[in-house]
Amino acid sequence: MSARGLFISVEGIDGSGKSTQARLLSEALRGAGYDVVATREPGGAPGAEAIRRLLVEGDPARWSPETEILLFNAARRDHLERTIQPALDRGAVVVSDRFADSTRVYQGVARASLRPLVDRLHDLVIGLEPDLTFVIDMDARAALSRGLARQSGEDRFEELGLGFQEALRAGFLALAQEYPDRVQIIDGARPPDAIAQDVATRVAARLP
Amino acid sequence: MSARGLFISVEGIDGSGKSTQARLLSEALRGAGYDVVATREPGGAPGAEAIRRLLVEGDPARWSPETEILLFNAARRDHLERTIQPALDRGAVVVSDRFADSTRVYQGVARASLRPLVDRLHDLVIGLEPDLTFVIDMDARAALSRGLARQSGEDRFEELGLGFQEALRAGFLALAQEYPDRVQIIDGARPPDAIAQDVATRVAARLP
Repeated sequence: MSARGLFISVEGIDGSGKSTQARLLSEALRGAGYDVVATREPGGAPGAEAIRRLLVEGDPARWSPETEILLFNAARRDHLERTIQPALDRGAVVVSDRFADSTRVYQGVARASLRPLVDRLHDLVIGLEPDLTFVIDMDARAALSRGLARQSGEDRFEELGLGFQEALRAGFLALAQEYPDRVQIIDGARPPDAIAQDVATRVAARLP
Repeated sequence: MSARGLFISVEGIDGSGKSTQARLLSEALRGAGYDVVATREPGGAPGAEAIRRLLVEGDPARWSPETEILLFNAARRDHLERTIQPALDRGAVVVSDRFADSTRVYQGVARASLRPLVDRLHDLVIGLEPDLTFVIDMDARAALSRGLARQSGEDRFEELGLGFQEALRAGFLALAQEYPDRVQIIDGARPPDAIAQDVATRVAARLP
């Protein structure tokens, strides 16, 4: 592996199984002897996790979309500086459950006119993209039932209903057109082990 | 007064007496019958106050300058949307203890090369400037003793020492050159009532 490491993000709607797949991928890579940093957004560093609590708890109308985008970027900058970049610099594989694509999709669905602000902030304070992004694709109704069944308490986004989930799913699928070299769509309607095998095969092609 | 109201900010280093002057100005305007919203930064709205706690508590190295600038802008955006703009829209006088100039000065002193990021974020998500800004100017050593004596528990910035306070003072004074139509320097070495009278006289010229 190059000295720069490999940065992989796993994306998808709540209940798609993306967190399970991020975990299974990290375990498989560790089992194969790689230095793996398994992380998540929002969060992934102590400061970023404190910002996460502001983002995922409380009333859905707690923040305007613009304030929310600023908080996501603050958390992402901290995550990048404290966790992702140091790991990549030492040559590790970073597997992140969500990254900047989630902000593009969620805020773009909330109001399409927000996308330029999302892009300008990303260029100004983040800059980095993953080397490889997997979108775990799943029927919105099935994913929504799974997400609600979890009762995580982090429900600011989960309360928004089926129509919103369907628009999010379409937003994640559209990422593959926008970033064809980076984003791969994974059929999430299969047993978790089959999906994990599919993902692991695709990652293997990028490992030394 | 115009339907848009009047937006006044009071700036200066910790211990300069700026919070006292912001309070005395608000009281004087209320006494004269004006609709006054007295507020402060970071904070000034419920969400922004939650972000304030992340900013002012904890280790001075808790956030990088870039993450800190994003958090200040998130808090400011919330403050603007929930408190300042609604008050100005109904024609009120808003008196804010600190606003965007504090970010310009503190971050500019921390690292001069941060100023372009501060300016680009301000243009992108804030835009608004006060109609009138008073910098309460005070000897850095005297201000530092006063600030430390307060023991507010909000000491991330107060622990940084005299050299930092002197650089901040110079940064606030330089605002008057950068924004000559908006920023007025007030001699803070006088008794509080004399300063308050000076400030009130200058504000009166901008009221109807």
